[in-house]
Amino acid sequence: MSLKLFFAPGACSFVPHAMLELAGAEFEPTMVKLHKGEQRSAEYLALNPRGQVPVLVDDGEVITQIVAILLHLDAKFPQAGILPASGLARTRALSTLAWMNNTVHPTFTHVFMPQKFTDDDEAQKAIRAHAAATYRGLLGEIEALAAQASPWITGDKPSALDAYVLTLLRWGGYAGINPEDFPASWALVQRLAALPPVARAIERERLQLNVYSQ
Amino acid sequence: MSLKLFFAPGACSFVPHAMLELAGAEFEPTMVKLHKGEQRSAEYLALNPRGQVPVLVDDGEVITQIVAILLHLDAKFPQAGILPASGLARTRALSTLAWMNNTVHPTFTHVFMPQKFTDDDEAQKAIRAHAAATYRGLLGEIEALAAQASPWITGDKPSALDAYVLTLLRWGGYAGINPEDFPASWALVQRLAALPPVARAIERERLQLNVYSQ
Repeated sequence: MSLKLFFAPGACSFVPHAMLELAGAEFEPTMVKLHKGEQRSAEYLALNPRGQVPVLVDDGEVITQIVAILLHLDAKFPQAGILPASGLARTRALSTLAWMNNTVHPTFTHVFMPQKFTDDDEAQKAIRAHAAATYRGLLGEIEALAAQASPWITGDKPSALDAYVLTLLRWGGYAGINPEDFPASWALVQRLAALPPVARAIERERLQLNVYSQ
Repeated sequence: MSLKLFFAPGACSFVPHAMLELAGAEFEPTMVKLHKGEQRSAEYLALNPRGQVPVLVDDGEVITQIVAILLHLDAKFPQAGILPASGLARTRALSTLAWMNNTVHPTFTHVFMPQKFTDDDEAQKAIRAHAAATYRGLLGEIEALAAQASPWITGDKPSALDAYVLTLLRWGGYAGINPEDFPASWALVQRLAALPPVARAIERERLQLNVYSQ
């Protein structure tokens, strides 16, 4: 068995990265430097034609998309608590995971890469400002989840949802949003970051948790 | 056991709608008229504060998000083939499902509701035109999947992916894209629509398959 994770520092690939560490999995972490355009190299595009991270390679099989990677890892490491094991708790967690993935994440894309949506400079500025306001509202929805966490969003064990909160709240800093405006989320993120396996992933990605500057 | 599906005609709720019919499930289909704003009624917002379809109510438990609803139904009706049962085939199908849900669907949202991304009229026009071109490219990726279908995308049985193709290709018509430009997808959609259980869902939603007009 060989597992390889392609990740970019601070990208959403942090979620499976942290989960692999929490699962105690043996894996080969491989950094993709987005600022150097490595995701558009011929070698990387052969792996993932969409040029995105994360990519998980399991015994030579290429797996893309966070939701699929997490469900694959969950089946492989059922004790790791990546998602609740079954029933309504699992369904609810999947619902939140899907929402983070199809709503919160794409909203941030409008802040970070408005050029994906129009070539017009003025329109890009309008898109970015609008998305930053929307993003703040979505972090408010996450704050309600974090406020009910006991101690983690799905219960006893840190799951993929907690790791996703870390990524999404951190991104807020780039949208001009102070993580301290969301105290329950910020406390959860700091608690998660302090777990030794998660700290290893953070160290490998050289992440600063709070990137907000006034 | 009681199952209730809230759907809107032509929305992505068609995917679980078609799957419930294909599974032979007993369920109560409930139409939400988006053009009348029923998704913003106090009653509906009490069910789903995000005001979106689909919502599945399983014995009083409210489940949102297509990916979570489909995985829930797949666990409930394992013989229905909503997704491949296990292994790499399942992981691959989940990857494609997630991509349709977090990339193809949100791209169409920019065509259909550009006002979600900016208040500026001119910027909305720019966003819509850009997204329509992006959407055509994404339908090209789906065409490659449909070209390899034998006879369905995941193999012997029609799955959630085939139903999602129907929805996404149909939406293309509203983006000025002729479904006949994607012959493998269009053939797959027509084949799917001809299955009696799927035809029942189409009839209930009163869908015209090809909404493209020159």
